[in-house]
Amino acid sequence: MDYIEKEIGNIVSEILEDYKKERNVDTIDIFRQPDKKEIIDIVKGLMRIVYPGYYYDRNTKIYNYDYNLSVVVEDVMYHLNKQVALALQYKDPTLTEAERKEQSQQIAIAFFKKIPAVRAVLETDVLATFDGDPAAKFKEEIIMSYPGLFTITVNRLAHELFLLEVPLIPRIMTEYAHNLTGIDIHPGATIGNYFFIDHGTGIVVGETAIIGEHVKIYQGVTIGALSTKGGQKLRNVKRHPTIEDYVTIYAGASILGGETVIGKNSVIGSNVFITASVPENTKVSIRNQELIYKQDGTTQVVDNGGLNNTWYYTI
Amino acid sequence: MDYIEKEIGNIVSEILEDYKKERNVDTIDIFRQPDKKEIIDIVKGLMRIVYPGYYYDRNTKIYNYDYNLSVVVEDVMYHLNKQVALALQYKDPTLTEAERKEQSQQIAIAFFKKIPAVRAVLETDVLATFDGDPAAKFKEEIIMSYPGLFTITVNRLAHELFLLEVPLIPRIMTEYAHNLTGIDIHPGATIGNYFFIDHGTGIVVGETAIIGEHVKIYQGVTIGALSTKGGQKLRNVKRHPTIEDYVTIYAGASILGGETVIGKNSVIGSNVFITASVPENTKVSIRNQELIYKQDGTTQVVDNGGLNNTWYYTI
Amino acid sequence: MDYIEKEIGNIVSEILEDYKKERNVDTIDIFRQPDKKEIIDIVKGLMRIVYPGYYYDRNTKIYNYDYNLSVVVEDVMYHLNKQVALALQYKDPTLTEAERKEQSQQIAIAFFKKIPAVRAVLETDVLATFDGDPAAKFKEEIIMSYPGLFTITVNRLAHELFLLEVPLIPRIMTEYAHNLTGIDIHPGATIGNYFFIDHGTGIVVGETAIIGEHVKIYQGVTIGALSTKGGQKLRNVKRHPTIEDYVTIYAGASILGGETVIGKNSVIGSNVFITASVPENTKVSIRNQELIYKQDGTTQVVDNGGLNNTWYYTI
Repeated sequence: MDYIEKEIGNIVSEILEDYKKERNVDTIDIFRQPDKKEIIDIVKGLMRIVYPGYYYDRNTKIYNYDYNLSVVVEDVMYHLNKQVALALQYKDPTLTEAERKEQSQQIAIAFFKKIPAVRAVLETDVLATFDGDPAAKFKEEIIMSYPGLFTITVNRLAHELFLLEVPLIPRIMTEYAHNLTGIDIHPGATIGNYFFIDHGTGIVVGETAIIGEHVKIYQGVTIGALSTKGGQKLRNVKRHPTIEDYVTIYAGASILGGETVIGKNSVIGSNVFITASVPENTKVSIRNQELIYKQDGTTQVVDNGGLNNTWYYTI
Repeated sequence: MDYIEKEIGNIVSEILEDYKKERNVDTIDIFRQPDKKEIIDIVKGLMRIVYPGYYYDRNTKIYNYDYNLSVVVEDVMYHLNKQVALALQYKDPTLTEAERKEQSQQIAIAFFKKIPAVRAVLETDVLATFDGDPAAKFKEEIIMSYPGLFTITVNRLAHELFLLEVPLIPRIMTEYAHNLTGIDIHPGATIGNYFFIDHGTGIVVGETAIIGEHVKIYQGVTIGALSTKGGQKLRNVKRHPTIEDYVTIYAGASILGGETVIGKNSVIGSNVFITASVPENTKVSIRNQELIYKQDGTTQVVDNGGLNNTWYYTI
Repeated sequence: MDYIEKEIGNIVSEILEDYKKERNVDTIDIFRQPDKKEIIDIVKGLMRIVYPGYYYDRNTKIYNYDYNLSVVVEDVMYHLNKQVALALQYKDPTLTEAERKEQSQQIAIAFFKKIPAVRAVLETDVLATFDGDPAAKFKEEIIMSYPGLFTITVNRLAHELFLLEVPLIPRIMTEYAHNLTGIDIHPGATIGNYFFIDHGTGIVVGETAIIGEHVKIYQGVTIGALSTKGGQKLRNVKRHPTIEDYVTIYAGASILGGETVIGKNSVIGSNVFITASVPENTKVSIRNQELIYKQDGTTQVVDNGGLNNTWYYTI
């Protein structure tokens, strides 16, 4: 085994040498940036606070809710505080450690004070989901298992930290939800009450999107940007659409562009690709798809008559 | 730190006050509904029982399979029993605790007795996957790593509990698989032997879908509903298609509606959107896509000649 | 409880009987194949080595990097060694245990020596991602939270083991990333420097695909095969396209076929479906979608004028 030990020694030396190149991948000071695992634990703690009957800790026998909630709040606040203080270095590298601590404490308190207001909005999301989905048998089923509700919960919490101008952490939170659910909503997106996501996999909602109340979106929908390859130059420009109240967007539709507005009560059918505004009360669908049927050597072109009714499409 | 402690005290009081509003998000009795984490552990235990050589517990040194299997079965049954007893409150709130215990025991036993039959079907899924995918080098690779097989395994187990009329738990099981794989198959869906899912991300199969034997589906396929915004009024209606034996459905196709039947041996090409029945032995594809090519200031419309052969499409 | 115990006894006997049928699902020797959990732990260890400042172990207080890195490298190498030795049975069942041990050691050493080269490539991926995404505020955000970078990292590592002809393990690694991110890139795919994946959910890249440098792909893109249902007969044939340098492929596009080449600097627009080669410097988009607008009883067909500019599409 001498040979192996020598090889391991060589490999370690080569990798340590490689770490000295001062590239992005070479960042080695683990105390310089927030920690993904801690942030995921913060999200889990917040889920317990937001839905007290659903995400509890099985190891804690809970007979005294007041006491128990105090413990969880204190724990989450302690860790959030620590992570925000680290993240603030990215907002302003000139801040002293004391200033960062002071600011992160203010942020953590301001964030926690928002929780009752966020919970009030999440109740509207539960109601919208139940009303929209015939497969939902109980509201508890939605809170316990629907990926759409989980994602919007993480998003509404992350959005509060985004509004408090915390760098890095909001995105780490929403990417955690994205990993679990395949739904990618940027923490910067502004989303109204009664939001309903069905199925969800493949949904993308961009940073500067504005979404009204009572909006429903289905799997594979993109609310994205239409850009001229600007890359970093486009930062801080409104690049994503505005969706007004009571709009429904069916599976696979793409709505693109910062000046695109979907007027209220409008319905966007499956697979529609929109790059311009749509007035209120409009139903937009793609033309019938012409399909080719081949059978026993014969070929027939068939107009898919159901297709221009795709605004009816739901699961 | 007095300031912080006082703020935490205030925050906890405000949240506790918020919990008193009797909304869905305020459910606080953690013993009223099943526990997601326990159900995920049940799924993990079932994977060990179903695939004894693949999902073992590294902490258990296994020299005596009989003894080891007893331990796992007993453990999973104990927890399933407990969770089903909780879930039965949703089926019939008038049941006494004793009645729920009695019923949940019967259900857990009936479920476990189905496991050999489910395993026989899963063997056909392994064979269908190997036959269908040139990238599969070994059948063990499929059992160890293919998201399609994992999802159909969870689904077939959850479907048995669905048939035994257990509320909540089957859906929590399939949403766990959905989280891991991006494949969203409702536990109510009826799926025949030799089912092959390739890639899988973005697949949606609805609650009342009926799928025959030797069916293959690819990523992004929806077998869904076409409805008139009925929401909860449509519960218990057949809202999703019937897919007969030996049908293949390529990537991105959508097949919608409770009265839609895809006849046996038919092939549905990529991106086809179907809302009406298709006869047996039919190949359906979308018309050639007209593409626009721009190059050096010239624009050309090109007929994508390959497209009407999309029934050949596989990965 | 006698009744239950008897039933459990019966169930265990039935399942043990079922295990004797010698099907694929009956593999019971847990020492015959690699272990998924161990391989996932190996991936986690490799992430710590590749990005030393980001995926650290919170339980280890790190003041001495040299020593710490040695520990991680030794640990990962030990487990990789063990798993590769098991996997080699699939490459050549006639190898003795000693031969497998010898070969797996060589492979593990060769693999680790590749790590600095892989890290150099990953730095280019970080740079390409930052340049391409206006929502990226910091490069650290990319390393900590972007699913595209995570997936390509796992893929580049798995690809090295694939080149060293290790069976099973590379695919288990990439399916772990697929589970987390919804991005399904086969470990056999060859991918050049400066690769940028945006959003990513639903992406599929096949085993024999060849991708050049500075290529960008968006969510829902398939770089797949177009085959004649060959199944296992097509193994080892080039079934997937070649994408040359500086190509961009927007959301939902499908590029199919082993002889399809996308020439350098070309741009493939959203939802384009390509089965034939595209010359250099070409922008391909689908024709304008004709949309149907219904409003107040009137129906209008609208040409979606933005659509033939979809090569501009980005998020």
